[in-house]
Amino acid sequence: MRTIDWVGDAVEIIDQTALPDNTIVRRLSTVDEVIEAIRSLAVRGAPAIGVAGALGVALAARLHADASEDLADAVARLRSARPTAVNLARGVDRAAARIPDGRDAVLAEATALMAEEEAASAAMARAGADLLGELCGDRPRLLTHCNTGALATVVGGTALGVVTELHRRGALGAVVASETRPLLQGARLTAWELGRAGVDFRVAVDGAGPFLMARGLIDAVIVGADRICANGDTINKIGTYAHALGARRAGLPFIVVAPESTVDVATATGAEVEIEDRGSAEVVGFATARTTPPGTEAVNPAFDVTPADLVTAIVTDQRVIRLDRGERI
Amino acid sequence: MRTIDWVGDAVEIIDQTALPDNTIVRRLSTVDEVIEAIRSLAVRGAPAIGVAGALGVALAARLHADASEDLADAVARLRSARPTAVNLARGVDRAAARIPDGRDAVLAEATALMAEEEAASAAMARAGADLLGELCGDRPRLLTHCNTGALATVVGGTALGVVTELHRRGALGAVVASETRPLLQGARLTAWELGRAGVDFRVAVDGAGPFLMARGLIDAVIVGADRICANGDTINKIGTYAHALGARRAGLPFIVVAPESTVDVATATGAEVEIEDRGSAEVVGFATARTTPPGTEAVNPAFDVTPADLVTAIVTDQRVIRLDRGERI
Repeated sequence: MRTIDWVGDAVEIIDQTALPDNTIVRRLSTVDEVIEAIRSLAVRGAPAIGVAGALGVALAARLHADASEDLADAVARLRSARPTAVNLARGVDRAAARIPDGRDAVLAEATALMAEEEAASAAMARAGADLLGELCGDRPRLLTHCNTGALATVVGGTALGVVTELHRRGALGAVVASETRPLLQGARLTAWELGRAGVDFRVAVDGAGPFLMARGLIDAVIVGADRICANGDTINKIGTYAHALGARRAGLPFIVVAPESTVDVATATGAEVEIEDRGSAEVVGFATARTTPPGTEAVNPAFDVTPADLVTAIVTDQRVIRLDRGERI
Repeated sequence: MRTIDWVGDAVEIIDQTALPDNTIVRRLSTVDEVIEAIRSLAVRGAPAIGVAGALGVALAARLHADASEDLADAVARLRSARPTAVNLARGVDRAAARIPDGRDAVLAEATALMAEEEAASAAMARAGADLLGELCGDRPRLLTHCNTGALATVVGGTALGVVTELHRRGALGAVVASETRPLLQGARLTAWELGRAGVDFRVAVDGAGPFLMARGLIDAVIVGADRICANGDTINKIGTYAHALGARRAGLPFIVVAPESTVDVATATGAEVEIEDRGSAEVVGFATARTTPPGTEAVNPAFDVTPADLVTAIVTDQRVIRLDRGERI
């Protein structure tokens, strides 16, 4: 099952805000619907929103064929629907570059990107599983954060694709899925995917990760990335950096798995990256009862920066970069 | 307002599981009701559950005056209602030691402990505020975790007592209250107390703490403790250790504020402390919709261990121990 696809003359996505309670396929027939799906995290994960951006341009090229001003405006709005992941701008730009060749060329470029992300998932799964075997021996007990499975890509996944690949090989010890507040991508989406894949797992609150590592219950941490800077600084879901600090203190490998399309050599370090603050409502309006007093505000950075010196290795679809051995991007 | 008190012939508490939506005073007339209140976290915080244990013994001494076997059983059950905080066993033991002197002596001992905890809160608030001024200069921006205010003690608080003392002095910059999953003591209880005290604050998900520190938005971290070991290892609410790692990496002071009754010289290091796992339901059954798939299990340690080398100073009601300068307990 693809989590995003082009069907007929529109984009179809699995609405991730409704999971795990409901599996709803939403049909996006306008550029505004695509932008809203990206903003609301109905489609999320760096590779998936890159594809969403490209397919959104394909949709715009069909809808605004005779009005280049509207088309340019649609491309600009798609490009800035979310600021942090480099894949979105890149997917949009790649599809938009074919606009002079006509709408079918734009769609072909977008679907090519989708196919490439699928192939990239398979390549990362193999390389990551091999690397974990090398670093941790047989049956490692892994901790992962956020959702980096098929839902974050097109099929397969990044970090979670490595986990399920190890499971297929019979070489997985155990998995802890960090719940990933505020939106619980770990507790909702990763749990849903691991359950469907038949993988034995437990969830934990985000604050428990470093302590589980300190007590010897975890062998390695494996996460995805929304953007990897030229120096190896890794932008990923808020909470990732704390796990990286815990892994370093416990002497555990900290592995980043992300497609080459996530690598952004134009950004030197994490300090340069704009980190989206998604506002108070996601944090304080979470449960329906017994949370925060009315009017409470939150600081809500959606991502954090894990400094490159805390990253053992970056696994992409094309290479394994052993930062711990001095290799560089 | 006291959060726990002896009224007439029973214990009265503010039921913390109902806050902030409802302020309910619960009257506990049997030992089983006291034990249930401790287990369910209706009364919580190391100093407060120490007082609850002592008052529970006073209640038992009244109810079982003629049946020493029942009394001994009640004392033993109170003592083990929660395993991690040393204050509970210590409060129970202190009151129980007066059983030979009659029920009034037991009650006098329990109320004396309550009065001492009140005085301790005031002493810690002054010493902690002085120390923060010394370490951070004027108007520090603080991050705190869990709830360590009046609700965790009797009145005043430990770490949060320092925050409100700085506010009274007009010397507080800002406060971030880490929400403290799974039970949201920060988002519910600390937010409630800070709002009532007129302190400007924001909440943040637990995973955001280290990143807020890395981005220069926090000047110091201040937390309480459920138990402080002989070497300075600090047992506190799960998530504390991650904040300590973040503070170290950012070069920020990490301050522990706890009464002398929390110091447990009989326990050499944190590795010896039993950490309570409170089961899956607190984690996976949290919100009413859109959380984990049915049947999902959690690993749920209620506390973690912050190694002494990450602690800048411990502030008790009697002394300031500068671990960063080589001072020892």
